[in-house]
Order: sequence, then structure tokens, then C-alpha cells
Amino acid sequence: MFKRPKPVTDPTHRVVIIGGGFGGLHAARSLKRVPVWVTLIDRRNYHLFQPLLYQVATGALSPANICAPLRSVLRRRKNVEVLLGEVVDFDVDDRQVILRDGRVPYDTLVVAAGAQYNYFGNHHWQPLAPSLKSIEDATDIRRRVLLAFEAAERETDPELRRAWLTFVIVGAGPTGVELAGALAEIARYSFRHDFRHIDPAEARIILVEGLDRVLGTYPPDLSNKAVRSLLRLGVTVRTDCMVTDVQPDRVRIRCGNGIDTIQARTTLWTAGVQASPLARRLAAATDAQMDRSGRIIVAPDLTVPGHPRIFVIGDMARLDHQTGAPLPGMAPVAIQQGRYVARLVSRRLAGKTLPPFRYRDRGTMATIGRSAAVADLKWARLSGFPAWVIWLFVHLMQLVMFQNRVLVLVQWAWHYVTFNKSARLITGEVPTLKPPESSRKEEVTESAELAHH
Amino acid sequence: MFKRPKPVTDPTHRVVIIGGGFGGLHAARSLKRVPVWVTLIDRRNYHLFQPLLYQVATGALSPANICAPLRSVLRRRKNVEVLLGEVVDFDVDDRQVILRDGRVPYDTLVVAAGAQYNYFGNHHWQPLAPSLKSIEDATDIRRRVLLAFEAAERETDPELRRAWLTFVIVGAGPTGVELAGALAEIARYSFRHDFRHIDPAEARIILVEGLDRVLGTYPPDLSNKAVRSLLRLGVTVRTDCMVTDVQPDRVRIRCGNGIDTIQARTTLWTAGVQASPLARRLAAATDAQMDRSGRIIVAPDLTVPGHPRIFVIGDMARLDHQTGAPLPGMAPVAIQQGRYVARLVSRRLAGKTLPPFRYRDRGTMATIGRSAAVADLKWARLSGFPAWVIWLFVHLMQLVMFQNRVLVLVQWAWHYVTFNKSARLITGEVPTLKPPESSRKEEVTESAELAHH
Repeated sequence: MFKRPKPVTDPTHRVVIIGGGFGGLHAARSLKRVPVWVTLIDRRNYHLFQPLLYQVATGALSPANICAPLRSVLRRRKNVEVLLGEVVDFDVDDRQVILRDGRVPYDTLVVAAGAQYNYFGNHHWQPLAPSLKSIEDATDIRRRVLLAFEAAERETDPELRRAWLTFVIVGAGPTGVELAGALAEIARYSFRHDFRHIDPAEARIILVEGLDRVLGTYPPDLSNKAVRSLLRLGVTVRTDCMVTDVQPDRVRIRCGNGIDTIQARTTLWTAGVQASPLARRLAAATDAQMDRSGRIIVAPDLTVPGHPRIFVIGDMARLDHQTGAPLPGMAPVAIQQGRYVARLVSRRLAGKTLPPFRYRDRGTMATIGRSAAVADLKWARLSGFPAWVIWLFVHLMQLVMFQNRVLVLVQWAWHYVTFNKSARLITGEVPTLKPPESSRKEEVTESAELAHH
Repeated sequence: MFKRPKPVTDPTHRVVIIGGGFGGLHAARSLKRVPVWVTLIDRRNYHLFQPLLYQVATGALSPANICAPLRSVLRRRKNVEVLLGEVVDFDVDDRQVILRDGRVPYDTLVVAAGAQYNYFGNHHWQPLAPSLKSIEDATDIRRRVLLAFEAAERETDPELRRAWLTFVIVGAGPTGVELAGALAEIARYSFRHDFRHIDPAEARIILVEGLDRVLGTYPPDLSNKAVRSLLRLGVTVRTDCMVTDVQPDRVRIRCGNGIDTIQARTTLWTAGVQASPLARRLAAATDAQMDRSGRIIVAPDLTVPGHPRIFVIGDMARLDHQTGAPLPGMAPVAIQQGRYVARLVSRRLAGKTLPPFRYRDRGTMATIGRSAAVADLKWARLSGFPAWVIWLFVHLMQLVMFQNRVLVLVQWAWHYVTFNKSARLITGEVPTLKPPESSRKEEVTESAELAHH
């Protein structure tokens, strides 16, 4: 009555891939003509295009626009099966992946479970300053941002209203910079005619960065251009500042010797990088070394040292560049690593091998609101409108499903012409906007700060 | 520092509208040139196009495609303000609406808080058989449907797998019929190549209806045509059947004298109608009468008898047709009532009045999957492809925002050509697909049924 699986290839070699992000998905796709049976395991049923997640968080795109159902993407790959499940541990001796609800045997294992942002030991800040890694994060941030404007519209106390209209973004990497630009843009343009009691353009967007410049991994002249674009949009950029405390209604930062308290009702976190907790399980099972961000330090062929059957790729892997710096946690690195692993598996089946993985850096870029971006393409450095056009084109073409390319293009064109962002839904529980008086008049005490460090 | 509200009209007459659905939104829009200050209160920040909600539940459209942010829609109406808030009660003597967090005074009140589905006293069934009224409902149903196929893919016991692939829809009104058709379509076409261990086309969709025919408010010949279309898609239609028990893994129905137990892991509820709980508060405050569905029985001018300042419109109002039958809970009724109230308010300000409200019935329609629909246009009855084209056109044109019309059109065209539905995201908590053995082997005991009655 039910069809049994019909592997078109010889299933004697089983490749199990954990994670359907850029690395895992490209590894699965690149194993197309290789005589192996591939099982792709993910907790989610979709591949997420993380570089555009900030556009969901700011109401420009819908979640489905940047997601591709894994089964759809891989439907024609007859040697690939998709398994919805959560990996909790590894049994290296028996060559099995342990799910929360079962076990899957492997001959070759590819671990590509990604990374999260890093609260540097202050994980209790997360509910107060959510980060942006998943669709749920994005809709939660969208909800917080929209509710902040709604609360400001109803608030009569000017000081509290100002706190509702203050948004702090911690971390000025590409996501932080793009999020700050997009927030400034919706406040200034999209919401222009929407409120009756506030002027949304009075919103303050404050971008806080611990390093001495934004976009720390980019060339310094592009950092300067990015800052200029941010300032033009009204964003306040504060470099060399560390966050020392986060509360529901304020953020404390230390800049040099001074301590500053920002009254803000919305704080968003896009700083640091921390490998998936699965890395710790894998390290325990294989005696692998981890770096300070919890990433597995891999051999030049992306295997776990001493475990030639186990690969770690993407944001979970720590591999140093030819120049000595670690490879950044970016989509192109993960994609190239996924393809390399597929090639190496194929070679090994033929009794051959491959030279070590080499990352080919084709450049990096970031947008800052409307018609402005910075791009370091290695053979050229661009900023402003030309960089923005390239940014649009590259990101559109990288979307996995053609339908999403069309939908995103239509929406971007629409936003460009009308300034109007339509995916502005506050979903979930019905909020009570004005909290009772008692909780609103908390005193700013030094002890509150000390309690957190 | 902050802009104060600048009412462009004389704000001496305040119209408060509760609910941004079809009735409330059209009342607010139609008060455009009337010298009143309008406050539209909703718990949500968007207007929801409910007739297409089933397409979100089946992964064809994204939530934002059928939602229009109320502030965006009303941004140019300078005499309208939108207030995000939840109304909990009425103070009729002081002419105030009581929010969970404040009060809003009115001179004229328009209550348009809508309705829900009716579990007929078995409200404990709701978590087991969710209904489809909100965006959260739709993404929850989408999640359940997608997870059922994922669970079937991983289940090895044929009987349990069959239960995962069985979907019961209770109530064969337009929403139930459209949902059944769409579910059958994704099982047969959209998922065709997506699974390796199951054939999704084996899914059973069972539509259960208490009356003797589907689409009970339509002419009988259209009901017959709808059934034929459903059968062609493989839907099982069971009329004259009442649900007597709902459990996580089965539904019990009584058809005539026989009792039948359907082993089904997914049950959806689209039966009956029950006014918003706010109707009860309003009835208590105004001594208004309610009908059995909890709707306020209104006077021919849509006011609450004895309270000429208070209107009730849309699904919350009970008003009988010229023919004696109650007006159905449909968008056109609510829209015409919203416009009528706006006209009457305007006339009253000029010291005049209006004849009683008369509903102009322009017809009803429903789709059944791909290329098939039934339409009763009063001057013609259509079915099949012509009805489907009209259905598409009418629904597309009714979407409030032009951008959504474009996006929905692109997606419909895409689905028509490729059969592929892209908004197939399972969002929320990570599921455990195989529950522990103990909870799966519950015995079907008569006492379980008795416990619920």
C-alpha cells in the first residue's frame, strides 16, 4: 500500500548531512551523480536565506519569500531523502547520529549545524535583546519594532515616548548595519503618514560596536563609507563601546572611560558568533578541539582530526585562511565547503583524494537602506548606488527558488517606488501596550548594573 | 517635540469603530468626507482578508499577502486614527468604550468585532480540532498538516501511518469545502515527488457535514456540482453526520443510527458560527437580545434597539433578510452594512435619516481545488472553469492593497503552472515526531467518549 524507498543509486555508502543551511544544502546537491544514499537532517523543513532575514524583521519581505522547503528543493535528487528531526548527539563508535527520537547510521557524516550570536556569557540578556538568526527571531523582532511605534503613539509622557522610539542595535557587522539602515528607513519613510500623535522620523536608531569601526572585516575605507550612509539616514553610530547591562527600558554602555545609559525600549543583538551547541557534543564524541567561539577546529580537508569520515563545514567549523585569519562565517564559505566535501566523498569512493580546501574570496557587501551599499569585490571597491545594484542582483540570484526571486523582485520594486512595506504584521498574543504604572517607574540604580557583573 | 494630533475635521462628533474587518474598515473609509473624528480600534494592526485564509493554511500564500496594515490602508484619511487595543467592555451611560488599558469616549459607536466558529458546547475540542479564523490559526493548521506528512514519512507501522495521512474537516460551508479541495490538491499534486517512503496521494480527506448537503446556503444544484468536484479530487464527503467525539488520534461521528470511528491525526473545524464574546458584554450593557449564535439582534437601521448611538454590523449582528432568513456571515453583508452606517451617521449630522438597511445579494461562490468552482451570481449559476475564473478575479480585486493583488496573482499563476506551493514553512517549536510508545497505543474505549458528554 505504501511505496517503499527506491534508491536509484547503490545505497551501500550512506552520507548523512546535518543541517539544511548553505553548507548542508550545497553538499547534498553536489552529491547528485555520486553513488551514495544521502540523508539530510534538519530541525526545520526549509532552507533559510539568512542574508535577507533583516528584511523580514523590518516588514519588507514575508518569511516564505526567503525560505525554500527542503523537500521541494531536493525533490528531483532521487538519491537524497530529507528527514525532519533534531540531532542531539553522536555515536562515533557505531557510526550513528542520535536524534531526539531515533538513530540514523552513516558511513560519511557532514555536520553543518551553523552558529548563533554570542552574548559573551550574558545569556540572560537574550529575552531583552533578541538576536536575528531564525524566522521566529525575525517575526519576533518585527513584532517588537511595530509594537514600539504603537506604544509610542499611545504614550502621553514625552520621556517614556522617547524611550519607545529609541532602538539600540548591538554589533555593527553586516547584519547590524543592514538592520540599522532598514529601521531608519521605515521610521523616516514607510511610517511617514501612518501616525497621528507621533512623528516616526523622531525615532533614534543607535548602532553600538565594540571595535573601532563598523564592518570590521571589510576594508577601512568601506567602513567609512558605510558610516557616512548610516549618518545620512539619521543613525547614531557608537564605536569602541561595550554593552555592560541590558534592561527592558535601558541599555548601559561603556565607551572608553565613560559609562552611558540609553533609555531604550527595544534592543536588538547582532554581535559575536557562537557555534551551534551540537559542536560541543561532537567535540566530546571525537576529542576535537574547539576555538573560543565553540567552533570545531578542522583539518585542511575539513574533517575532524583523527576522524576522516566526519566533516564539519560552514559556521560550525574553524579553519584558518591562507593568510592566517579565520574564514568568516559567511554563505560563500559554507557553499564552497559543501561542494568540496561532495567532491572529496566522490573521489574517495574512487580510491583517490583531493588537495586541501581553499576558499576563493569573491568579495563581501552590505546595504545601508535605500540606494546605498558598500561592496568589496576584490577587483573593485564600490559604494553608493552601483554597489546597491550589485547587491540587489547578487542576493536575488542567490535565492534558491525561482518563485521567490520573482516575489522578492516585485516587492523590492514596489518598496522602491512607494516606500511602503506591507509585511507589517504583529502576530502572536494580543499585547497590553501600557504596562501598569509601577513597572514603568523603575529607578536606575547602580546596583542593577552590578548585579549583572 | 512630538506632533500633536491635527484633526482636519471638526472633532466634536467622535465615531468609535471596534474591529478592522470588512464592516469596520468600510465604515471608517466611508466616513471620509463626514465631519467626524473616527477612532478605529482593533487588537490587530491589520485587516485580514478571511476568504483566502485557507490558502495560507495550505501553504499557497503567505500571511502578509492577505493582510493589509490598518495604518497603511487609512493613512490618507486624516480624520481617522487607528488604535491598537483590546476592548473588554462598554460604559453606555458615560458613552465610553473600555479597553484593557484605558477608555475611549464616543458619540457614535460601531461594534464590528466579528465571529468565531462554534464548537456547540464542546469547546475542549478546540485544541484537537482547531478552527480557521486568524492568521495564527492558519499557520497552526499549516504546521499540523505539514507535520502530519512528515510524521507519516517517518512512521513504519502502516496503521499509524494511515492515521497520519487522514484529515477530517468538520463543516462543509465554503471554508470547509475550499480547505478540503486545497488539501486534496497539495496531497495529489504539490507533494507528488517530495517523499521517499509514502505516496502522499494516499492521503484521505474526509469532509463531515451535519446537514444533508454541502454548501447549505447555496442552491442545491450547486451543492451537487461541488460534491462532484470534491469526489474527483478524491475527497470523501459525509453528509448527515454529527461529530460526537474528538481525540488526538480519532474522530467519532454519528451518521443516522450508525456510529463510525475515523482514525485521524488531524482534524480541522469549520462548522457553525458564534459571535465574538464582546457581544455578550454589549448585550449586558444595553439589554440587547442575542440569538442562539450569540449575535446581537439589531433594529432595521442596524442600531441596538433603544440605543440609537450604538450600531452592530457584520458577523456580530443578527438581522433577518427580507425573505425571513438571517443574513449570512459574509464579507459583502458586512461591507454594505459598514457603508450604510457611515451614510446614516452623515445624514444624522444634517438632521436627517435613512430608510432601513437592505442587503443587495450579488451572489456567492466557492472554489474546489484547481480550475473548479461553483458560483451563484443570482443572474446566473456557474460551475467548473468559468466559475473558477470569476472566483479568481473577484477575490483578487477585493484585496485591499494593490501590492497584494500583484503578489497573489504572481503566486497563483506560479502554482497553476508548477503545482508547487512555496509557503510551506513549519514555524514555531521544534517537534518530536514519534511520540513515545506509551502514548501511541491508547485503547479506544467507550468511556473516553462518555467522559466528554
